[in-house]
Amino acid sequence: MRLTRYFLPVTKETPADAQIVSHQLMLRAGLIRQTAAGIYAWLPLGFRVLNRIEQIVREEQDRAGAIELLMPTIQSADLWRQSGRYDAYGPEMLRFPDRKGTEMLYGPTNEEMITQIFLASVKSYRDLPRTLYHIQWKFRDEIRPRFGIMRGREFLMKDAYSFDLDEDGLKASYEAMFVAYLRTFARLGLQAVPVKAPTGPIGGDLSHEFHILAETGESAIFYDAALEDISRDELLSADAATIARLTSLYAMEEEEHAKVAECPVPAERLRSRRGIEVGHIFAFGTKYSASMGLSVQTADGTSVHPQMGSYGVGVSRLMGAIIEASHDSSGIVWPESVAPFRVGLVNMRADDAKVTSAADDIYRQLQNAGVDTLYDDRDERGGAKFAGMDLIGLPWQLIVGPRGLERGVVELKNRATGEREELSLESALARLTA
Amino acid sequence: MRLTRYFLPVTKETPADAQIVSHQLMLRAGLIRQTAAGIYAWLPLGFRVLNRIEQIVREEQDRAGAIELLMPTIQSADLWRQSGRYDAYGPEMLRFPDRKGTEMLYGPTNEEMITQIFLASVKSYRDLPRTLYHIQWKFRDEIRPRFGIMRGREFLMKDAYSFDLDEDGLKASYEAMFVAYLRTFARLGLQAVPVKAPTGPIGGDLSHEFHILAETGESAIFYDAALEDISRDELLSADAATIARLTSLYAMEEEEHAKVAECPVPAERLRSRRGIEVGHIFAFGTKYSASMGLSVQTADGTSVHPQMGSYGVGVSRLMGAIIEASHDSSGIVWPESVAPFRVGLVNMRADDAKVTSAADDIYRQLQNAGVDTLYDDRDERGGAKFAGMDLIGLPWQLIVGPRGLERGVVELKNRATGEREELSLESALARLTA
Repeated sequence: MRLTRYFLPVTKETPADAQIVSHQLMLRAGLIRQTAAGIYAWLPLGFRVLNRIEQIVREEQDRAGAIELLMPTIQSADLWRQSGRYDAYGPEMLRFPDRKGTEMLYGPTNEEMITQIFLASVKSYRDLPRTLYHIQWKFRDEIRPRFGIMRGREFLMKDAYSFDLDEDGLKASYEAMFVAYLRTFARLGLQAVPVKAPTGPIGGDLSHEFHILAETGESAIFYDAALEDISRDELLSADAATIARLTSLYAMEEEEHAKVAECPVPAERLRSRRGIEVGHIFAFGTKYSASMGLSVQTADGTSVHPQMGSYGVGVSRLMGAIIEASHDSSGIVWPESVAPFRVGLVNMRADDAKVTSAADDIYRQLQNAGVDTLYDDRDERGGAKFAGMDLIGLPWQLIVGPRGLERGVVELKNRATGEREELSLESALARLTA
Repeated sequence: MRLTRYFLPVTKETPADAQIVSHQLMLRAGLIRQTAAGIYAWLPLGFRVLNRIEQIVREEQDRAGAIELLMPTIQSADLWRQSGRYDAYGPEMLRFPDRKGTEMLYGPTNEEMITQIFLASVKSYRDLPRTLYHIQWKFRDEIRPRFGIMRGREFLMKDAYSFDLDEDGLKASYEAMFVAYLRTFARLGLQAVPVKAPTGPIGGDLSHEFHILAETGESAIFYDAALEDISRDELLSADAATIARLTSLYAMEEEEHAKVAECPVPAERLRSRRGIEVGHIFAFGTKYSASMGLSVQTADGTSVHPQMGSYGVGVSRLMGAIIEASHDSSGIVWPESVAPFRVGLVNMRADDAKVTSAADDIYRQLQNAGVDTLYDDRDERGGAKFAGMDLIGLPWQLIVGPRGLERGVVELKNRATGEREELSLESALARLTA
């Protein structure tokens, strides 16, 4: 993409109302723009990142055997009355009548709806187990939206729902999602700590939150330092044994930690850091299947309420968490897996026909090789271009200038390490298309 | 995908409340499920088709140079007051206060918001022309939602907005979108008639609706039969000359046609058929840039309000239009470009280990070759499997049964033509992976 034809409004100023670094950088790098309190438009660069995060989340759901569908954003209040949650849910639920006066709401989650859909079509044990998921916009009417898209009101969430015949099945479905989450966060370049979560009045002991460690996290997490020793490769090849090992290690939110009479972790191994909650999984059993009348025939002819679980990931929030975990004083440092473009190509002298012709040619070659490239072909001075490239944080910068060209070289900069290297055009292309 | 692990609730009964064939077939084939009046969930098979349609729309927008972003579903009423449309818009707009009493609405379209976003970042003629688009859920609170997703309340729309310095620029942007639309509908396997649309009080003469010809269309279209002679290849390679030719041929909606004193088309060439509106493009000039205070500096230092246009495609409605245009008495006949799977693999005897082993092996080979395959591996009788495959309308059915296997052959059925052919497994795979 040529910058002269793109829409990338970067700014030097740090927006006054943005308190945390991810919010500041998302505004400055032209990723998002606020359109109302806690509501954001995703500008082209931000939209590309959002798509990449979403796609990784999707691939890991599919790999776990979950099936994608798409439920609407607007739901009927009557549906929520069936489960008893309409009155239980707080003012975070955006409720309104439609033009005929029917009470509607903007879905904050979809347990009721998926149960209704399942109920309408599944009668037999042969149709279980199933895990269904969707990636859809949700709305939670936060009283004090803040931290940009980290605690916005309209946000993108992946929510999956599992249906099993019995508790063993539910445990297997839960573990499959646990593995999917470990892989998802690892692929996003994030270190996620699974924290045992209180299950509240519903009971059961299977609930975990996934927290990304970052100074700006809203919760304090206490955990066993051994959790930090688990490698990315282990997470990517996670299985039930990995989960058993991970969940045997102590990790609690502050509030829960305070209730623990005697912490099992020796003081020298107890870590406390702040965390950003990016996922929450929950085995709640028959809460919705029983209240909403979902039952299936078993092999022996009796009837049971399926055991259910739900599994959420804050897809849009993850973008903020990634930036919190990966930035420096010059701007964002995108992990390769979610970078909006892989390469930023900088033409140092757009007013020099020879340099421009060389840069245009490199751009064509990168495009032909399928390398996502943002080409700064503007007639601006080099300093502004470098600052812009550092701010938006593409993994590689390829710099084409008159002096280098005379010697037959271009410069390749690694955004994460800051390393710059002069090399022949051929070597640079070989490196970037590898 | 194995059907024993999928979620595809097909039904034999024709739903009583579905009046038109696309609505009936979408319910029967398990593509959608109604969750409230005029609001639908997209079940896994329907979601796959929706994605394919969306992707074709996206590719043609990108090819036309439009840049994708994503605006939120919820907008503030104040934004719409700036253009004066808040009061002008009818009760189709879903309006509600948030928890603090701020007046909000579920966006039915985005002219105001995109103008505001553009205004915040573009100051100079050098940043024009630009066409920005998004593909997002919209809500129109229809008084009488009907025809399934064809006239639903929550629907997916692609809306693009162009910004140009002058009227010539606007005309060029408009033509680029016109070409994109011709290509989009051709790729979707649809014959679309561009109909000159009245521009109303806004003025200007650049507005066209695109109608798919189908008996169940809501409007009657009168047009020159010469429009039917334009080939798919011409549409796919459309340019300004194609547009000039197409738009010189008479095509009017009934209401407008009735106003024409003397129809320029000789009676023997005048056709009248019903049409489904699937796109509407509109050059409205400075209506929003002027009312919302968007101006840019020109090269000579003066200031102008950009000339704007907007360009909509009903992405979810297109699925209904495709089915209206392509079905038979047995069910849907998907064009290859949007089919949810390319091949339906039918195991005729899931209770026969030899047949199942052969079918499993074919399934693996198709997967390895990257052919999207739905594998009916259920233990059901052949008749039900055939009826189901015909209903969901995948382009190819590959049938594996005991008698054929004895002779070393499988059966390949073309859904559109009904042709069945016995051939060796190798030939069948070669055909499907070509």
